[in-house]
Amino acid sequence: MVLHLHDTSTRTVREFASIEPGRVGMYVCGATVQGPPHVGHIRSGVAFDIVRRWLAARGYDVTYVRNVTDIDDKILHNAGHEDVPYWVVAMRNERAFTEAYDVLGCLPPTYEPRATGHIPEMVDLMQRLMDEGVGYAANGDVYFDVRAYADYGSLSGQKVDDMLAADDAEARSKRDPRDFAMWKGAKEGEPSWETPWGPGRPGWHIECSAMARKYLGSTFDIHGGGLDLVFPHHENEIAQSRCVGDDFANYWLHNAWVTTAGEKMSKSLGNSLLVSEVVQRVRPIELRYYLAGAHYRSMLEFSDAMVTDAGQGFQRIEGFLTRAAEVIGDGFDVDADNRHPDFDEAMDDDINTPQAIAVIHGVVREGNAAIARGDTETARSRAQSVVAMLDVLGLNPSDWRRGDAGGRLEGAVDALVAVALEQRQAARERKDFASADAIRDQLKAAGIEIEDTTDGPRWSLSDDGGSSDVG
Amino acid sequence: MVLHLHDTSTRTVREFASIEPGRVGMYVCGATVQGPPHVGHIRSGVAFDIVRRWLAARGYDVTYVRNVTDIDDKILHNAGHEDVPYWVVAMRNERAFTEAYDVLGCLPPTYEPRATGHIPEMVDLMQRLMDEGVGYAANGDVYFDVRAYADYGSLSGQKVDDMLAADDAEARSKRDPRDFAMWKGAKEGEPSWETPWGPGRPGWHIECSAMARKYLGSTFDIHGGGLDLVFPHHENEIAQSRCVGDDFANYWLHNAWVTTAGEKMSKSLGNSLLVSEVVQRVRPIELRYYLAGAHYRSMLEFSDAMVTDAGQGFQRIEGFLTRAAEVIGDGFDVDADNRHPDFDEAMDDDINTPQAIAVIHGVVREGNAAIARGDTETARSRAQSVVAMLDVLGLNPSDWRRGDAGGRLEGAVDALVAVALEQRQAARERKDFASADAIRDQLKAAGIEIEDTTDGPRWSLSDDGGSSDVG
Repeated sequence: MVLHLHDTSTRTVREFASIEPGRVGMYVCGATVQGPPHVGHIRSGVAFDIVRRWLAARGYDVTYVRNVTDIDDKILHNAGHEDVPYWVVAMRNERAFTEAYDVLGCLPPTYEPRATGHIPEMVDLMQRLMDEGVGYAANGDVYFDVRAYADYGSLSGQKVDDMLAADDAEARSKRDPRDFAMWKGAKEGEPSWETPWGPGRPGWHIECSAMARKYLGSTFDIHGGGLDLVFPHHENEIAQSRCVGDDFANYWLHNAWVTTAGEKMSKSLGNSLLVSEVVQRVRPIELRYYLAGAHYRSMLEFSDAMVTDAGQGFQRIEGFLTRAAEVIGDGFDVDADNRHPDFDEAMDDDINTPQAIAVIHGVVREGNAAIARGDTETARSRAQSVVAMLDVLGLNPSDWRRGDAGGRLEGAVDALVAVALEQRQAARERKDFASADAIRDQLKAAGIEIEDTTDGPRWSLSDDGGSSDVG
Repeated sequence: MVLHLHDTSTRTVREFASIEPGRVGMYVCGATVQGPPHVGHIRSGVAFDIVRRWLAARGYDVTYVRNVTDIDDKILHNAGHEDVPYWVVAMRNERAFTEAYDVLGCLPPTYEPRATGHIPEMVDLMQRLMDEGVGYAANGDVYFDVRAYADYGSLSGQKVDDMLAADDAEARSKRDPRDFAMWKGAKEGEPSWETPWGPGRPGWHIECSAMARKYLGSTFDIHGGGLDLVFPHHENEIAQSRCVGDDFANYWLHNAWVTTAGEKMSKSLGNSLLVSEVVQRVRPIELRYYLAGAHYRSMLEFSDAMVTDAGQGFQRIEGFLTRAAEVIGDGFDVDADNRHPDFDEAMDDDINTPQAIAVIHGVVREGNAAIARGDTETARSRAQSVVAMLDVLGLNPSDWRRGDAGGRLEGAVDALVAVALEQRQAARERKDFASADAIRDQLKAAGIEIEDTTDGPRWSLSDDGGSSDVG
């Protein structure tokens, strides 16, 4: 089987063929940096990170561009509220997104362009749309005439005549109420850049057409983003780019939302869903496992409890790898040849991660059975297979440990707490209660709290932050 | 005393007065992202981070802008060598710099603009210099006519007539061989942007004039950078900005170099001086302490051994805080009122960090004496003073622990290893050699190696990475 991907523009799962053999250019709509990221934002980051990793696993050299929209109404509003320039807000939140991507194990993009850094490219594109007669300036704004592009609506499957007209302040300046703004004329007190049509600022859609073209060329392989971007954002990108003769993206991938109690997770929800908060309560690798556990096109309900429940599934995988390493007395290298063919088949089937994870669990069961009957060779081969498959999902535990000292130290603390508890138990058994109490006090002084659970003792640091199984 | 800073432009230590009461605008020349950062680069980051923190401690609201030069000859050369676009190289190294700043405890800048994101601002500035008659286009390049600016050379204390002419390929196009390029005409196969004088790319100096103006205004408080930037880079910035009527920076601060065996640390030195490598061998907080231990205008010789030696001084401070916390049974809040007046005086004296650190050690000695004689109140007050002073230098250990789980876990491992070793010793003493050996084996299995040193046992993780005193 070869890779197939669901293409929103055809509403079918299509065989994937890259424009250039062995290379993939991929553009993903990243953050509009109005605030720090919540779980919904990071789902998109993880989903496309897995797509990218699978393409790499299939031998493609992937150029992955993910933009930062660093100016829009809400950023300006928030900056005004804080009485700081817009770029103070944008930079702070760009960093918060970077940290969230990092903590969830997403590989950094090949390039991460900012909208405001590409004004000349946008002006050039708008000029060409003017020359083609599909762009027009009115009252300082620059609009796209949707009637001038016959295919407008094809991505989202709508007809222009069926579309509701935007009832906004811009409406009076437009030729047709459905036309969209590529450029917004300067308002008093707002930042602006000069253009042939007067000063103003980017109107969102134009930046992605301009930046995708600049970094990936006029035709590239994959364009991704959240499902809520299909209309109008991606529809508008297509209109802009096609009207200057660009073929633009060959495949359109969209990830579904994260919901809480059935509602789309939106920026108006509280801080408790901020990634920075959630990862204080659940292990980041388990959060990634949870996000990977749903197909990227399925809605995903989020709660701490659901992540924790799913995390037990991940701990079964980790537990197998730990036991296997003990039995074999060694770690495991990642070798693509060790992946189970069913895993590859699942991933080739539109990145079917739930199916791929089911394959991993099947191999874990075989491995556990092999350990139980003392079949070291089979245990080793299954462990190597599991590690190779986890690697593709960005879930190889040893990467997370190697990547940051925190992860490696966490493993050391696990083992050390186990030593201490074992010594405490031994002291109790020899009725040396003074030693037993001293060990308990020393753990407490070290800021380590022990909680007895049905799965055995679990430790945590007594302030906020990291916790882990002792096992 | 009020803050005094050494101003390169007057070669004197001047009283600092901000343009706007309570606010400081500060522009620092950041990385030209040709490769990952070495210790020399990060010294500048740490030095200006301390300046910034001291300004904040003195009550200023600091806007700190540090640029990223993301295009230059070397970046293009390196990209060509790898057969990738320049922005692939620039992005990768920008991230490496960000990681290095973070790991050394530098606060993120308020904004971090990229040169290539500011073409319109540079074109606008060059146009104005053309209009003033000090800029001219020749052969696709745009030059600055240094004879047209009477004060050229004043920052670096040179007269134009004494300057050696650059003997370069551009020389034939220039009116005077000392003129410098603001813009470089496009060469075959190189990235370029359109301008009224033809396509090309930024010529370094112009970007800082344009970006400082954009983010901090035509007059701002402080401009910083490495001593090697005084001439020609900062001289050229001044010439460009003053010739369009900008007052530009009021104070010019320059940090001296890091040397190894007396040589300026340059990019041609090996990987062993990369920050990412050094922090595998020495504790990052001790590296920062070492860098802070020299005055920013003094050359600083670097070797792992010198950092490790200096680190023992930092461990004395940490040791006092640990003992004080044990005696008092509590941690310490940061309160500026608790700083020793001599510390403030040292910092006000052109950020005299070696003197400031000497004051900290004096207070540590008083605190240790207080603990020795059981004077808990004095111990508490000295500990609070030490924490408040460390905070200003970005060396408050609890920040480093709070900031990343790694730091907090490291403390937990310290304590746990101590528990394990104590239990091993107790087992030996009761001649339970089986238990003693088991503990040793368990530590080894946990990847923890124990080394007996004259200061007691020291643990390290058995792969590369973190090590620490057992404490």
